Amino acid sequence: MGLPDNCEFTFNRKYHPGHRNLITDVPGVTVGHCTLEDDGKHIHTGVTAILPHGGNLFRKKTAAGVSIINGFGKSAGLIQAKELGTIETPVLMTNTFSVGTAVSALTKYMLQQNEDIGVSTCTVNCLVTECNDGELNDIRGMHVTEEDVTRALCSTGESFREGAVGAGTGMICMGLKGGIGSASRLVSLDDNEYTIGALVLSNFGEAGNLRIDGKRISHSCGTPDPAGSNAGDKGSIIILIGTDIPMDSRQLERIAKRASASLGRVGSFMGTGSGDIAIAFSNGTIIPHYPESAFIDMKTVSESSIDRVFEPAVEAVEEAIISSLYHSTTTSGIRNKTVMGLRDMLIKQADMKKKGLE
Amino acid sequence: MGLPDNCEFTFNRKYHPGHRNLITDVPGVTVGHCTLEDDGKHIHTGVTAILPHGGNLFRKKTAAGVSIINGFGKSAGLIQAKELGTIETPVLMTNTFSVGTAVSALTKYMLQQNEDIGVSTCTVNCLVTECNDGELNDIRGMHVTEEDVTRALCSTGESFREGAVGAGTGMICMGLKGGIGSASRLVSLDDNEYTIGALVLSNFGEAGNLRIDGKRISHSCGTPDPAGSNAGDKGSIIILIGTDIPMDSRQLERIAKRASASLGRVGSFMGTGSGDIAIAFSNGTIIPHYPESAFIDMKTVSESSIDRVFEPAVEAVEEAIISSLYHSTTTSGIRNKTVMGLRDMLIKQADMKKKGLE
Amino acid sequence: MGLPDNCEFTFNRKYHPGHRNLITDVPGVTVGHCTLEDDGKHIHTGVTAILPHGGNLFRKKTAAGVSIINGFGKSAGLIQAKELGTIETPVLMTNTFSVGTAVSALTKYMLQQNEDIGVSTCTVNCLVTECNDGELNDIRGMHVTEEDVTRALCSTGESFREGAVGAGTGMICMGLKGGIGSASRLVSLDDNEYTIGALVLSNFGEAGNLRIDGKRISHSCGTPDPAGSNAGDKGSIIILIGTDIPMDSRQLERIAKRASASLGRVGSFMGTGSGDIAIAFSNGTIIPHYPESAFIDMKTVSESSIDRVFEPAVEAVEEAIISSLYHSTTTSGIRNKTVMGLRDMLIKQADMKKKGLE
Amino acid sequence: MGLPDNCEFTFNRKYHPGHRNLITDVPGVTVGHCTLEDDGKHIHTGVTAILPHGGNLFRKKTAAGVSIINGFGKSAGLIQAKELGTIETPVLMTNTFSVGTAVSALTKYMLQQNEDIGVSTCTVNCLVTECNDGELNDIRGMHVTEEDVTRALCSTGESFREGAVGAGTGMICMGLKGGIGSASRLVSLDDNEYTIGALVLSNFGEAGNLRIDGKRISHSCGTPDPAGSNAGDKGSIIILIGTDIPMDSRQLERIAKRASASLGRVGSFMGTGSGDIAIAFSNGTIIPHYPESAFIDMKTVSESSIDRVFEPAVEAVEEAIISSLYHSTTTSGIRNKTVMGLRDMLIKQADMKKKGLE
Repeated sequence: MGLPDNCEFTFNRKYHPGHRNLITDVPGVTVGHCTLEDDGKHIHTGVTAILPHGGNLFRKKTAAGVSIINGFGKSAGLIQAKELGTIETPVLMTNTFSVGTAVSALTKYMLQQNEDIGVSTCTVNCLVTECNDGELNDIRGMHVTEEDVTRALCSTGESFREGAVGAGTGMICMGLKGGIGSASRLVSLDDNEYTIGALVLSNFGEAGNLRIDGKRISHSCGTPDPAGSNAGDKGSIIILIGTDIPMDSRQLERIAKRASASLGRVGSFMGTGSGDIAIAFSNGTIIPHYPESAFIDMKTVSESSIDRVFEPAVEAVEEAIISSLYHSTTTSGIRNKTVMGLRDMLIKQADMKKKGLE
Repeated sequence: MGLPDNCEFTFNRKYHPGHRNLITDVPGVTVGHCTLEDDGKHIHTGVTAILPHGGNLFRKKTAAGVSIINGFGKSAGLIQAKELGTIETPVLMTNTFSVGTAVSALTKYMLQQNEDIGVSTCTVNCLVTECNDGELNDIRGMHVTEEDVTRALCSTGESFREGAVGAGTGMICMGLKGGIGSASRLVSLDDNEYTIGALVLSNFGEAGNLRIDGKRISHSCGTPDPAGSNAGDKGSIIILIGTDIPMDSRQLERIAKRASASLGRVGSFMGTGSGDIAIAFSNGTIIPHYPESAFIDMKTVSESSIDRVFEPAVEAVEEAIISSLYHSTTTSGIRNKTVMGLRDMLIKQADMKKKGLE
Repeated sequence: MGLPDNCEFTFNRKYHPGHRNLITDVPGVTVGHCTLEDDGKHIHTGVTAILPHGGNLFRKKTAAGVSIINGFGKSAGLIQAKELGTIETPVLMTNTFSVGTAVSALTKYMLQQNEDIGVSTCTVNCLVTECNDGELNDIRGMHVTEEDVTRALCSTGESFREGAVGAGTGMICMGLKGGIGSASRLVSLDDNEYTIGALVLSNFGEAGNLRIDGKRISHSCGTPDPAGSNAGDKGSIIILIGTDIPMDSRQLERIAKRASASLGRVGSFMGTGSGDIAIAFSNGTIIPHYPESAFIDMKTVSESSIDRVFEPAVEAVEEAIISSLYHSTTTSGIRNKTVMGLRDMLIKQADMKKKGLE
Repeated sequence: MGLPDNCEFTFNRKYHPGHRNLITDVPGVTVGHCTLEDDGKHIHTGVTAILPHGGNLFRKKTAAGVSIINGFGKSAGLIQAKELGTIETPVLMTNTFSVGTAVSALTKYMLQQNEDIGVSTCTVNCLVTECNDGELNDIRGMHVTEEDVTRALCSTGESFREGAVGAGTGMICMGLKGGIGSASRLVSLDDNEYTIGALVLSNFGEAGNLRIDGKRISHSCGTPDPAGSNAGDKGSIIILIGTDIPMDSRQLERIAKRASASLGRVGSFMGTGSGDIAIAFSNGTIIPHYPESAFIDMKTVSESSIDRVFEPAVEAVEEAIISSLYHSTTTSGIRNKTVMGLRDMLIKQADMKKKGLE
């Protein structure tokens, strides 16, 4: 749902969101979570799965582009996505030490759906992204199982929760509770309406640096939580942008690159330890695994119209990041660490202000 | 001088500027302009030269990194700077159609200083950057001469003007008059004080998108100037970051990449037609052309301390951009186009507001 | 004409050449030279121009890809070609210090053909490549004029000479006389015949490293010319690959990358000082500057058929390099340096062998 | 051992190999295999582990560079290696569908050695590379276990086997049996002797394209094995280059890029489906995880001496590839496929020739 209208703060939009204000406004895109929480075992982690469309993804690949904004990250599958300009599996998000498990589970999921893979045709490129949730989660315990991954893959739908859920369960962003956020924008091209959506897994940034709609939030927020103060060093953000606008991989890479402007808007300086990865795909451009002839017919947006896609994309990612904070509630985790949710922080801040005024 | 304290607007700094608040706070860096203005001939253009240090740049190259944020640009010399991680000439800025002239003039300047080039050693890689000032300047007239380039090269010093001067004479940024801007920040590492400075040639962005210190400026600015409304499509920004912090080329490329966060902060979405190029150099890391042995001893900042360089770099670039607007005055040019300076616009806006209130 | 059948050495082809065995077998491609030679003034240089098609290149751009195999080079225009995946001007080749002159001349040539550039539309990205011919040519004299560039641009045709001509006049390759070489291959896709052509400006490699059809040539060639022995350090190769096979820019970049295999085949190890640049374009994929709608219809070769393009491309570049040597005759130049042509060297070698046997 | 002197074919060396002619000639480098073979279950696969040095790799990272020659590959860990220019774990090689298992096992191995990872410091970047051995191995069975990975990691030493062993057990190269190959070269710089070594996992190329020392092998080899004829489409090569020459990551990336020349020399055209990945590291440049101050002192080879590293590196990789073929014996696998070893093929060929002559 992105940011609601009755939000505690202002967020001006230049472009209209789709009716859900989620990446699933892009027809065919679905999202599912598997959330793992066990306070006793200090488990606060999970898996999020995004399906670029509802068909056989290996046989009908989507055009895709990748931007490694800052490469301190352990995501798998990006190299081939870049080379061939396609995504051929669901996109997974999880914690850093569960990448191996997620790759194995996704491989099995793909093998089950495609008997030809590894026999009469090539292998499959599993796309698994990650952030480090070790500040709240017992990440060394490697608690995500292959079944958890499959559960996320099998529970996708057009409605999904944002905030401290799925892969976002244990994430921290700007010293506040981060996680999953999403938003969408409508784009009109040649009298047809298209959608561009963003979904982020936010786990980046330094406490005190947050800007909402440009406004610095935390300068008036009192002493930043000391524990959160170096969260940025260990953080990351995965940014997934999906659309139904026909585009080729070079153009989608250009879209993905624009996510760095969104990061700038919300106050990030792309810390050295932050794996800032953006992936853009279009299910409006399908690349067949078994083409009928030596050539493929493609439709792509003209470069002279592409600014009409760039700007809403930047805005959707900006809102998705803020939305990930908005929907995340205060969470306690391993080593007795508590990280405040944005809304809880704003209430506390208002309270303190009120008391100060009295 | 960057932004003065008694500015018409707020600009919060997290890091302290150097004493000039200019890129020339980095010891050894000098800047010079050659400004060409002739209203009758519609000439509003020029050349800006930056010397990374005062010695022989070919023999004592500076470590350098390049980030092609958006490659719609005609700059020369970036490929080799990227491959070898060095700058071996002054950096020139001029208008797009004067790149050829600037390359020829800079080649001659380098040949004159180095009798070995092209005889007993290799050739020289001239670094010439550009933006399109064709909205105000008769760019098709190609009015910059080799003498103008030499004039800029020979007039460099620690003090220099910002705004509509040198290469910035005819530039437009966010629908307002753009041009040259600069700022600097102090960085303390191991009890030594270093400086990181930025100098930009601003010619990018869409009218109405400007954010100063996060605050959206133009939403309250009335109808945007129709002529300026598609300036972003033809724009560009050249961002030069200099420092005396010892760093290798990979690290300097990482610094250069962070400039995209600064662009995001001021409201850019990196339009397709904007050549957004960032170059970072360190004169704290000198690479000899004729090394004494097969090995070179280098000192570089540790990656675990590099965030202390990243964040002030992002802030310096942000201020340099705003400063380029602050120091640029309202300018009229070819095809009767007038572009307002930021301060003139703010005064006009305040006036209108006052009248509206009365 | 590439390598003739009655060549002094064996060169096995896996794929059939086009009827000229030149890049101009690709329908629409034309090539022109301007050769500058004046023994008294030590001038041995020139300009070569390649037109990707016969129409207005700015309005009908060709899809293009770029591979910077080794970036020790001063070519202009590669950044934008990479970003937008298009070429919008003729491609020029000349000596390193004439890049500025060539950019200026090409700018004027484009402005003359297009009144909109720099007025009602954006600027133009001039593609100018170079090698250092300073071993034979008085490169510091900067003898190429804008008129010479225009002469090359205006003399293009389907027939053209190879060897020590145009930009190749003063080049050295593998210690032998290098220069312009070309070759082509036929590719059959979906029962249609297409052509892939290569044109190189060869100026790279270390004396003694040459391999023709895999066979090491110079091991039996006696003492290498001492003057030529470090030519590789100052060398470069520009590799232009053209085709009429419909392909997008990502695919053309992949083609361009394969040129490094051709370099390996002929014995190069891509020396640090060698600017090894490959550019691939397809005039089978035209990108309009003024598209009629927000979308463009494109046809591209399917990735599963692309190996049928990759392998002939690698072979065409390999033959073009050997052909540049084959057609270059022994040349004397500045500082009394003489560089042998391959055929002259082979004759001399055969002679010596005969004498040795007697 | 690379290629023995009494080899069936000629392989000229320009540079001297180290005393083992293996990557382990680089002091500190060790290699281990875990080979899995079970004819009944069609298992022909395994794991190979390379340790860049014998100390704690996370605390003492080696400088590293990566070149994605062709990105059709599923290797994990390359993005961060590229961004930070370091390797901080052993390098693993295995089959494509075992990447997940290998990442999990390597994560556990690293966690066991480093209690700080994921608690008081960041996570760890596991480097796992792969090729598709599905032509001979039941790759869909995913038979590699975490224990197998640990076994490879714990069995490393300075002596190791080449050929159809470890990760190379089921690989195919140029229609012949491929696998693990290695070679080394000595490099003298400033009167000190250094070593550069290569280790490859060869699984690429089209039957009939092999060139040994430039000489085409298979043209005289009769009908190529039909089953092997499209092996190239599904292949890959992992190229690991190690050295003790002090170099920074930019330089190591340049070394890694040169591996494409080696591929060209042996007859590859870098097929679209071949994941051709080169990684270079130097244990002569150690980057501490916990530096003592904000700066690090580094020694790097001077760029003007780097050709003396480039050329032996290209030659070592070329020999390592041929050596992988030389040491691989004829192997039968899944779906009744038999792939000939190079030596067996050469004997058969000689036999046929003899019979033909009689």
